[in-house]
Amino acid sequence: MRKIGIIGLGHVGRMLANQLVMNGKADELVLIDKNDQLAVAVQADLNDAQTVLDTYTKIIIQDYAVLADADILVTAFGKSELLRQQPMAELETSYRQAKQVGQQIFKSDFSGILINLTNPNEAITAVLQQAVGLPQKQVIGIGTVIETARLHRAIAEGAQVATANVTGFVYGQHDGHQVFAWSTVHVNGQPLTAAINGHHLDQSQLKVKANLSNWYTLSGLGYNVSAVTAWTLRIMTAIFADEQLALPVAIYQPQYATYISFPALIGRQGIGNLLLLNLYPLEREEIKSAAETIKHQIESLKNIKGES
Amino acid sequence: MRKIGIIGLGHVGRMLANQLVMNGKADELVLIDKNDQLAVAVQADLNDAQTVLDTYTKIIIQDYAVLADADILVTAFGKSELLRQQPMAELETSYRQAKQVGQQIFKSDFSGILINLTNPNEAITAVLQQAVGLPQKQVIGIGTVIETARLHRAIAEGAQVATANVTGFVYGQHDGHQVFAWSTVHVNGQPLTAAINGHHLDQSQLKVKANLSNWYTLSGLGYNVSAVTAWTLRIMTAIFADEQLALPVAIYQPQYATYISFPALIGRQGIGNLLLLNLYPLEREEIKSAAETIKHQIESLKNIKGES
Amino acid sequence: MRKIGIIGLGHVGRMLANQLVMNGKADELVLIDKNDQLAVAVQADLNDAQTVLDTYTKIIIQDYAVLADADILVTAFGKSELLRQQPMAELETSYRQAKQVGQQIFKSDFSGILINLTNPNEAITAVLQQAVGLPQKQVIGIGTVIETARLHRAIAEGAQVATANVTGFVYGQHDGHQVFAWSTVHVNGQPLTAAINGHHLDQSQLKVKANLSNWYTLSGLGYNVSAVTAWTLRIMTAIFADEQLALPVAIYQPQYATYISFPALIGRQGIGNLLLLNLYPLEREEIKSAAETIKHQIESLKNIKGES
Amino acid sequence: MRKIGIIGLGHVGRMLANQLVMNGKADELVLIDKNDQLAVAVQADLNDAQTVLDTYTKIIIQDYAVLADADILVTAFGKSELLRQQPMAELETSYRQAKQVGQQIFKSDFSGILINLTNPNEAITAVLQQAVGLPQKQVIGIGTVIETARLHRAIAEGAQVATANVTGFVYGQHDGHQVFAWSTVHVNGQPLTAAINGHHLDQSQLKVKANLSNWYTLSGLGYNVSAVTAWTLRIMTAIFADEQLALPVAIYQPQYATYISFPALIGRQGIGNLLLLNLYPLEREEIKSAAETIKHQIESLKNIKGES
Repeated sequence: MRKIGIIGLGHVGRMLANQLVMNGKADELVLIDKNDQLAVAVQADLNDAQTVLDTYTKIIIQDYAVLADADILVTAFGKSELLRQQPMAELETSYRQAKQVGQQIFKSDFSGILINLTNPNEAITAVLQQAVGLPQKQVIGIGTVIETARLHRAIAEGAQVATANVTGFVYGQHDGHQVFAWSTVHVNGQPLTAAINGHHLDQSQLKVKANLSNWYTLSGLGYNVSAVTAWTLRIMTAIFADEQLALPVAIYQPQYATYISFPALIGRQGIGNLLLLNLYPLEREEIKSAAETIKHQIESLKNIKGES
Repeated sequence: MRKIGIIGLGHVGRMLANQLVMNGKADELVLIDKNDQLAVAVQADLNDAQTVLDTYTKIIIQDYAVLADADILVTAFGKSELLRQQPMAELETSYRQAKQVGQQIFKSDFSGILINLTNPNEAITAVLQQAVGLPQKQVIGIGTVIETARLHRAIAEGAQVATANVTGFVYGQHDGHQVFAWSTVHVNGQPLTAAINGHHLDQSQLKVKANLSNWYTLSGLGYNVSAVTAWTLRIMTAIFADEQLALPVAIYQPQYATYISFPALIGRQGIGNLLLLNLYPLEREEIKSAAETIKHQIESLKNIKGES
Repeated sequence: MRKIGIIGLGHVGRMLANQLVMNGKADELVLIDKNDQLAVAVQADLNDAQTVLDTYTKIIIQDYAVLADADILVTAFGKSELLRQQPMAELETSYRQAKQVGQQIFKSDFSGILINLTNPNEAITAVLQQAVGLPQKQVIGIGTVIETARLHRAIAEGAQVATANVTGFVYGQHDGHQVFAWSTVHVNGQPLTAAINGHHLDQSQLKVKANLSNWYTLSGLGYNVSAVTAWTLRIMTAIFADEQLALPVAIYQPQYATYISFPALIGRQGIGNLLLLNLYPLEREEIKSAAETIKHQIESLKNIKGES
Repeated sequence: MRKIGIIGLGHVGRMLANQLVMNGKADELVLIDKNDQLAVAVQADLNDAQTVLDTYTKIIIQDYAVLADADILVTAFGKSELLRQQPMAELETSYRQAKQVGQQIFKSDFSGILINLTNPNEAITAVLQQAVGLPQKQVIGIGTVIETARLHRAIAEGAQVATANVTGFVYGQHDGHQVFAWSTVHVNGQPLTAAINGHHLDQSQLKVKANLSNWYTLSGLGYNVSAVTAWTLRIMTAIFADEQLALPVAIYQPQYATYISFPALIGRQGIGNLLLLNLYPLEREEIKSAAETIKHQIESLKNIKGES
């Protein structure tokens, strides 16, 4: 039986719930939000929706206690769109929510894998890990998975090939200090230094184009939703099936003594081996610098007073 | 090749696009909204999302001309949440949009099946049918499909059986003058007059409970999204596969000389035979009365001046 | 985590494994067959297949011990095609296999729901239940689920409506003493005594047509595979999600003191309430008679000596 | 509307039909086999199966004429298992079938993309292309797609990473003169010369292991089915959505003036650009040699007299 929890029913939490239910991917789904009415609404709408399906998901709302035997728990609280407008105020709110939600999770005796989608992703993932009391390998953030996907797409469109034919990672800090590790990028096994399907691709332009996709989404819609949901589902698959899939999730990297987005193998136990690739020296420097940025952010969070 | 268009990228249009893409159900998807930035955002987010998939949908935006060879077109413009607060003002807006969108569809030479989700559903479906110039059987509204689904769920929960085991229809007017045709309702072949799985169900309570689900969703979320999307996908399946599936969609019913929600068989050509069931006389009267309500609504719409 | 076992890798067992893997419906799949080479082959082919997927299922073979924490176990041993040619010899083989497989399951400490697909279905399900030592409600046979589906299809094709619009059950003995309970049959809520979509359907012809589908499949292919697999997946869904779905599975019916195909609610705990519908007296007699047939078959099985 | 044809209802043809129907991936499916009874059986079983689904596929059998407007046609005639035992006799049979089937397809005015699964794959694809009279880019064979998948899996298991993290191609001749292009192989962007996740992988062992998977499947089951079906579905997706996905399919390579398995971009028009990677000189020599093998095979086929 697959039992999944989602805390925070904003755009992403709701879309994730919708996907899980509509595709029969969860047997039990626990939905929790600070707004009771919203949780009731999402449950009602999803239950109405699954009248049409030949699969069925039992939806439970507003009950931390039933998380004890959940396999995976996704945290998606906070409003990332506000983060952009009033960063510091919103950061405080996210931090306080993380502390509070983390305590509730701790009390629920949840012992599965936690996937955090709340931003600032690496920092809040670190805060949650401390609060929930689970081993570091069981607390993961979405990290730079979407940035990596966008880079793949920028390359695929530039070279007129399928995104499935592109590999390589963005490291660092989600939605902040990103590190495009060009040394890891290949298209059908070729580095970008070669012409790809007859196209010469420029790194600076690719970087701009990858970020542009985020900018377009935020400008027109105000928030990211489809991509982050789709990739969170992919992380879930890797966990359920113990797949050892490499993705640049937000994890605790002992080398930098902090949570940071870094490619690691994802399986049933959460994070397995980290991927130690032969990066260019400059890339390594940039990752170290991103680690510093994240550490400072975490430090500044700790100065926020805990009352909420 | 499956080619589907969606006009209107509100909550429902976006969710529908998301479902089609995430499940590889469309080969080409045409997205159109009056807000260019929104269309760009939805396209960007969905394209980022499908980097994870082993299916692929080509997404085209803001181009009516490419609808010429689309199989199905869904209209989901207007803001149903506003409809509740300022009904008359919003009705005018929807009507003007319907006229305008309808003309654009007419010019595109679209010749497939149009599924309208915009409210007031029966009235706007009628307006669209006139504007797009397609035969009545090719222009369908979502009608009381969701009301019917909610009734099934209320019964299923009351009797502690699966919704798949419940049949029967709500007729009349979506989100307005609904007619619960109890004569058509069965649970595993039993009428509600018998005890169902040991439970005696009360019609008045079932009606309240069915509507409550809508009320919960609107109160907490402000709009319906998951259920309407799920059932729209089901109607699409019935069309693509020429299934002759009976659903209470909004169709032109010659007996009442108006568009009304009435069970009919849905297939490749749109609407096939209507379902002429042995209803109770009272139910027939109520349906006639609902037809009058809709006719008046359509008349009042025609008094609205066409400029937008 | 969803963990499913399949014992017997004939056509049905293999198709079931294929569906579960290709749709990412299981996280762990345990495959067991008396033929080691076959199990290795199926595992190899499926693992090659899932290189293409964005889901992943861990496949374990030939290990009863790992069934201890499986959610669902499907038994699909025996060769139903031989059953038709040399019924008695094959019956003995199936019986001995059931005893042996049952003991192995018993030793594995499996405590989930067992779905038996091996024929003669009701009798072998009874034998398995005794051997595995699980409560009766946790040991289910596929029963007359497929016969019921075929009846729905015969009606749907006769009336030119979708199968989804047909309800009603076949009771009794799978692939033997079937009881078509016409009193339970409805199309969009209408009994067959009315014209359905303008068509008058004849019960005798419907019965012939429903059985013809089985005969066509056996004549041309030698065995049933797609339908039985599809409906087994549906039963699994009902179990995982505690759906209380009514299906005419092979269950222990205390009224007749035997396993028999009888509609019952399927959920997480296996069988819940039986469906006690208002059948015609003649239908009740026929069901009683079918129960006698099954009891005799089970008795005759017990005379078979246990060595294999 | 997606319309797909399958010619040849052996294990692979049947599994492909099953997958398409069970997942609602086709709206119309045309099934053709030289055995009428088999076609009837497969249609009956699949139609029984889809009684459970919330999707529906119209299944048409034994009618070449309706292929005129099909999007994709898959040829899967011949018995690959016999090919191994009596290669020359079976080769003649496959050749004559290809000529005959090809003529029927020609007469049907089919103008979509043909995917050939019959072996010897490159040679029969070449014969079919001549017979059906379609441009070379519209006639594709499955080629070394499965060999490539198996190589990915051998590497993934050796390095304990997910197969999704492995890239690279096998060129040459399916089930014959394979060319493992090690220069194209990467795991998370690293060449095999580096340690992968702490594992040093040996090319000779990987090659053995990749082929072993095929050998296991053939020994225990007698034929490949799941992997070839899964990858054929993937090729279909690439075609429907004009994806430009790179796969080593059997295509006409002008440089070698023959059909050969060579990575190329697959889209709506069939084959787009070929992938001209920087191979090792030795790899290039091996591909040339494989091309000669295939040419000789095609020549020897042409000496077979056409009567069947």
